[in-house]
Amino acid sequence: MKRPLKIGIAGLGTVGVGTVRMVQEHGASLSLSAGRDIKISAVSARDKKAERGIDLGSYKWLDNALDLATEPDVDVVVELIGGADGIAKELCQAAIANGKHVVTANKAMIAHHGTALAHACEAAGVSFAYEAAVAGGIPIIKSLREGLAGNRISRVYGILNGTCNYILSAMATDGREFDDVLKECQQLGYAEADPSFDIDGIDAAHKLAILASVAFGSELNFDAVHIEGIRHVSLMDMQFADELGYRIKLLGIASVSENGLEQRVHPCMVPTTSPISHVSGSLNAVVADGDFAETIVHEGPGAGAGPTASAVIADVLDIARGLKVPTFRVPAKDLQQMTPVAMSKHRGAYYVRLMLVDKPGVFADIASALKDHEVSMESVLQRTRDPGEAVPVVMTLHETEEEGVLGALAEIEAIDAVVEQPRMIRIENL
Amino acid sequence: MKRPLKIGIAGLGTVGVGTVRMVQEHGASLSLSAGRDIKISAVSARDKKAERGIDLGSYKWLDNALDLATEPDVDVVVELIGGADGIAKELCQAAIANGKHVVTANKAMIAHHGTALAHACEAAGVSFAYEAAVAGGIPIIKSLREGLAGNRISRVYGILNGTCNYILSAMATDGREFDDVLKECQQLGYAEADPSFDIDGIDAAHKLAILASVAFGSELNFDAVHIEGIRHVSLMDMQFADELGYRIKLLGIASVSENGLEQRVHPCMVPTTSPISHVSGSLNAVVADGDFAETIVHEGPGAGAGPTASAVIADVLDIARGLKVPTFRVPAKDLQQMTPVAMSKHRGAYYVRLMLVDKPGVFADIASALKDHEVSMESVLQRTRDPGEAVPVVMTLHETEEEGVLGALAEIEAIDAVVEQPRMIRIENL
Repeated sequence: MKRPLKIGIAGLGTVGVGTVRMVQEHGASLSLSAGRDIKISAVSARDKKAERGIDLGSYKWLDNALDLATEPDVDVVVELIGGADGIAKELCQAAIANGKHVVTANKAMIAHHGTALAHACEAAGVSFAYEAAVAGGIPIIKSLREGLAGNRISRVYGILNGTCNYILSAMATDGREFDDVLKECQQLGYAEADPSFDIDGIDAAHKLAILASVAFGSELNFDAVHIEGIRHVSLMDMQFADELGYRIKLLGIASVSENGLEQRVHPCMVPTTSPISHVSGSLNAVVADGDFAETIVHEGPGAGAGPTASAVIADVLDIARGLKVPTFRVPAKDLQQMTPVAMSKHRGAYYVRLMLVDKPGVFADIASALKDHEVSMESVLQRTRDPGEAVPVVMTLHETEEEGVLGALAEIEAIDAVVEQPRMIRIENL
Repeated sequence: MKRPLKIGIAGLGTVGVGTVRMVQEHGASLSLSAGRDIKISAVSARDKKAERGIDLGSYKWLDNALDLATEPDVDVVVELIGGADGIAKELCQAAIANGKHVVTANKAMIAHHGTALAHACEAAGVSFAYEAAVAGGIPIIKSLREGLAGNRISRVYGILNGTCNYILSAMATDGREFDDVLKECQQLGYAEADPSFDIDGIDAAHKLAILASVAFGSELNFDAVHIEGIRHVSLMDMQFADELGYRIKLLGIASVSENGLEQRVHPCMVPTTSPISHVSGSLNAVVADGDFAETIVHEGPGAGAGPTASAVIADVLDIARGLKVPTFRVPAKDLQQMTPVAMSKHRGAYYVRLMLVDKPGVFADIASALKDHEVSMESVLQRTRDPGEAVPVVMTLHETEEEGVLGALAEIEAIDAVVEQPRMIRIENL
């Protein structure tokens, strides 16, 4: 048997502790599967004395995580500190420079610096592995990069943030408003005190940028992701969605066409007949459309100690077995720079809700605004008419360019009888 | 760049042609992804003159597929002939003996001879790859063997036969009887003239035995799979299932417990809240329960030229990259021989439908039969009472051992007023 593979872990939060536990509990089977022993040799975290419920006694403790990069007894640095820049990035760069493999769960860092890191590690002949960065325990990076490697992938999309999906699912199931569910999530520890990273779609956008790169072999371009979160999703829109045969999900969608690369994260209405509409609670799902494999769906827990540790260890096993695979589908030097498609040029169907007080001529004004921008209505729904009080009017629009929809909505908002900002949710007939 | 990897393809049916097409269409991207060129050097099929819609002119034609095993210009033999024994097996054995890697879609051969083939190829230092044998384009073998490799997997199950799922979905959606849908499938070419391989569950059982081996690291034991097909699923049972909140699916389920390994293929009632109940048409799905990753679902097309070629080429790329991984999760010599759990010892919940003419005392007799076998009823459903005419009575039973259920049903069948053989479908609360 080959000599053991020695790993050093930076960061002993939930995922770090889960990773240590997995190595401790499954050591024998990891050895069988990898053909060599997997040993933790060193660990580093901010607080040595914190109670973590695991025995760290046999590992070298390093107060400074950066020392892992030069620790002779470490082959693989497992970076679980987090943050796009700062010590996490510094550690990864130093580890690569010292010829050590890197395994990381750090989606923010990859979204911002993935292309540079891929260049560095490929030049140094080491692995840069990040299964844990996207969709927790779902082996989606491996599926895209290896399992579907022969395909031209035209689109990859999914439910990429468990907190958002949990909130939206609870709103739909229990008929509660966003603020109410968010507050509960915060009390239960499912959402951060400052939840904006999750609910404003940034976390999902990090993951989407990574998925796009590994699916299409394109350079990471996080800045080109159009990002909208779920703060403005109301119970009323959920109820209308239900009536129209849709569910509201926060999706990340990346697609390539002759126009370039479109990357967007926003609430979507998806038909209840679509598999992704049934992914509920804190689960994640990722769907890839390949030209030969067709549509492949992956679903599972997107976060948590166990699932994320499972992904970290899968990467470690790959390294132990000597897997040589480009970081993002093709070698870093061959990654394409794809032209970003602006959101204004997005083509799709739309749900629009107006709140209006019924006045003579208002529908003519709305129709004229739509016509001005060459937008055509597919259906309209108005339940109650209560003169003097604002009532919701819901329209669905035929597939059209977003620019036109926004133009029409701006015109509609200026109509006297329209008393709130129109709400728009994109319809994805997945 | 390394020298090209040369493949020889045996069998030019749908999948063989799809594989050739994928190499021809995506040659450049395969090279980038693999770090070397992938070249088809030789092909073999029964009929050289058949019109296949692809240009085979640049490949060496071999009339005898077995010659691929000794062809100097072939590194990898892609076996797409099929059949558990005969030429397919002979070719794989000869290829391995000659130091060539093998890629195959042949589930029957692996189910029957997988352990021996794994021993042979590991001894010879070549790969034996079979992603295409289970669930078409879904990269489930890779997920189980690599992506989830750190987990102890306790259960793997799924919808493993597209023809059965298509028939059951059509019955449920269109309210048609089994025979009617099957006939249509045969006319459309979705089902074979002799459909027993699919609809009697044998194909699903082959795949289940393979999944069990790669999930649990156990020796293949196809003979221990309990197999029932879908011939006896009636529209009436589907309608009752619907009423009770279930859908009927043909599932393959393999699980490990302290008693050993349970492998079974049979129609199941699954709750409509379960993701797998929404997998419809000819799609496949595979679900794995890992101790760290939790429940991971994969879904996609389980057959067809494109999806199966996608899986074949993924295996070829792995070989091109020099992937070294045990054939079934752990090296062949370390595969466990697990004790099979007899179906009579299976514990689960049950749906039972009796057809009975209402006579005084019949319910007392039924209750007494259940009591004799310590089986307890959870619910009972009897819609109409039409004296003299047989009416359905549906019961669901609490979790119990199958032996008891079968004993009770034998006793119940002997009751005068029970006019047909009782129908039993296992309930899986997935």
